[in-house]
Amino acid sequence: MSTPTLLVLDAEPLPRLGRLTGRARIEHTDAAGLAERLPRADVLLVWDFTSRAVRDAWPGEGPRPRWVHTASAGVDHLMCPELAASDTVVTNARGIFDQPIAEYVAALVLAMAKDLPRTLELQRERTWRHRESQKVAGGRAVVVGSGPIGRAIARTLGALDITTALVGRTPRTGVHGPEDLDRLLARADWVIAAAPLTEQTHGMFDARRFGVMQPSARFVNIGRGQLVVEDALAQALAKQWIAGAALDVFEAEPLTADSPLWQVPGLIVSPHMSGDIVGWRDELGAQFVELYELWEAGKPLVNVVDKQRGYVPGH
Amino acid sequence: MSTPTLLVLDAEPLPRLGRLTGRARIEHTDAAGLAERLPRADVLLVWDFTSRAVRDAWPGEGPRPRWVHTASAGVDHLMCPELAASDTVVTNARGIFDQPIAEYVAALVLAMAKDLPRTLELQRERTWRHRESQKVAGGRAVVVGSGPIGRAIARTLGALDITTALVGRTPRTGVHGPEDLDRLLARADWVIAAAPLTEQTHGMFDARRFGVMQPSARFVNIGRGQLVVEDALAQALAKQWIAGAALDVFEAEPLTADSPLWQVPGLIVSPHMSGDIVGWRDELGAQFVELYELWEAGKPLVNVVDKQRGYVPGH
Repeated sequence: MSTPTLLVLDAEPLPRLGRLTGRARIEHTDAAGLAERLPRADVLLVWDFTSRAVRDAWPGEGPRPRWVHTASAGVDHLMCPELAASDTVVTNARGIFDQPIAEYVAALVLAMAKDLPRTLELQRERTWRHRESQKVAGGRAVVVGSGPIGRAIARTLGALDITTALVGRTPRTGVHGPEDLDRLLARADWVIAAAPLTEQTHGMFDARRFGVMQPSARFVNIGRGQLVVEDALAQALAKQWIAGAALDVFEAEPLTADSPLWQVPGLIVSPHMSGDIVGWRDELGAQFVELYELWEAGKPLVNVVDKQRGYVPGH
Repeated sequence: MSTPTLLVLDAEPLPRLGRLTGRARIEHTDAAGLAERLPRADVLLVWDFTSRAVRDAWPGEGPRPRWVHTASAGVDHLMCPELAASDTVVTNARGIFDQPIAEYVAALVLAMAKDLPRTLELQRERTWRHRESQKVAGGRAVVVGSGPIGRAIARTLGALDITTALVGRTPRTGVHGPEDLDRLLARADWVIAAAPLTEQTHGMFDARRFGVMQPSARFVNIGRGQLVVEDALAQALAKQWIAGAALDVFEAEPLTADSPLWQVPGLIVSPHMSGDIVGWRDELGAQFVELYELWEAGKPLVNVVDKQRGYVPGH
């Protein structure tokens, strides 16, 4: 077998692939050059995981890479019917983001319980104003999304003595099915969206679901922006259907300066950073190199996405 | 025995003592009336735990209450040599604040690790700026103070996979002695001050101790303001000897609007609220009533403070 061609859909900083020297012919492309280069590539590394260029470039003439890896947990930005119907294997960065995102969710939950945003406002105003805050221990959370990220969130919230229910597409031991969701939402103190973006989850957090929640409930989305109907969330906060929310992901990213979401009272806005700890890009690069070595040796890949479902099926 | 006189050093809202109706002659006083009423009181409830009136009023003529209870964990605000030398029993609110304070510390630790204060600033500026944050799992913390609050903090940080060392006055299983402190500080990511204020702990976090810490270390004080030399902390932050800090307690409380501490870069200021969850005053009142019932029945009190050491001796 000749040296495989590895095409990288670039983002800065570039992945460290030095270990593959001589073992892959590495080509780099931006979104504009992707369609032209795809037919020559054996492997596509979607390093720019914010780009939707693969969805646009994939349909077309000529051969296609046999394997596509995305340096992200979600695959919604690259899946298209032609890729889903093909024999191409798609893998993702499952595992890299679990613990960092779980900690990030815990940070948001505790910050909201302890009224930290208001504390920081009062500090800016040089105002000493004692307030009572909430205990999180003994509370209840629902985590929607039962993959490794959702499970890591449930473990971390559980470690804070928050009783946490997981909801997934398929009920199984320790995981509720979608039919239990509304009942669980109605008694949750914390609702965490950590599901992959699929047809089933698109827009699932809408006015009706925010209406089901308790007035004391708080909502966190670290999954994908499109899980949430943003206007409905803004309305739910304005009408005090729920007590607070935090969004790390948005329908359109980056959020533009004129978005009304920046100023919704009770909403914490962060720039899609929940999983991105210092060193994360190196971990993503190292994970790809490990997968490449499996692929090169003809061994089965791990983190293989079910292209119909849009995620790596779990336990 | 005639109905005992229970004197309450008041603060709003008043404690709910209805259960003691007919079992205690309840008198209320402010700081100004305390000295005059002390000789007639069998029991003193220091409900205004921010007041130093007991230290001032205690020395003097006439009988003194046989029992003093303070609705706080610390007793530094009421201890004076005459009270320490007397036969009067002093009890505190040990237990009420442990879990709330532990959660509060976890909230601060995670907020600093995830750069949440900066996220909220950027939100106010409507600016999308992705940053990398820190993983707390695998880090190291030192908690100074090995009472129930310190131990609760160690448990909660441990639940976040932070390896946590406790430092107390007396080394014992699971607790380091003061002689280990500098060595532990030199490798800690998180330093938490949770000690009682005593002669030994007064000003213990000074320029030398901040100098021992790592440049990446962050410091949290939820104990007493006087544990910290505030100028030295401000200098340590300005010189980047340490990466950040959060103070919930201060040498002088409330912090006045002209305090320079409000604006020290990298410092989170909160108004002595770490233990005060919704319902905390009711819990404090109920705890006193329980103690009163022991005392009334002639049974041994719990939460008895060692008046020489200034805290309830632990396991």
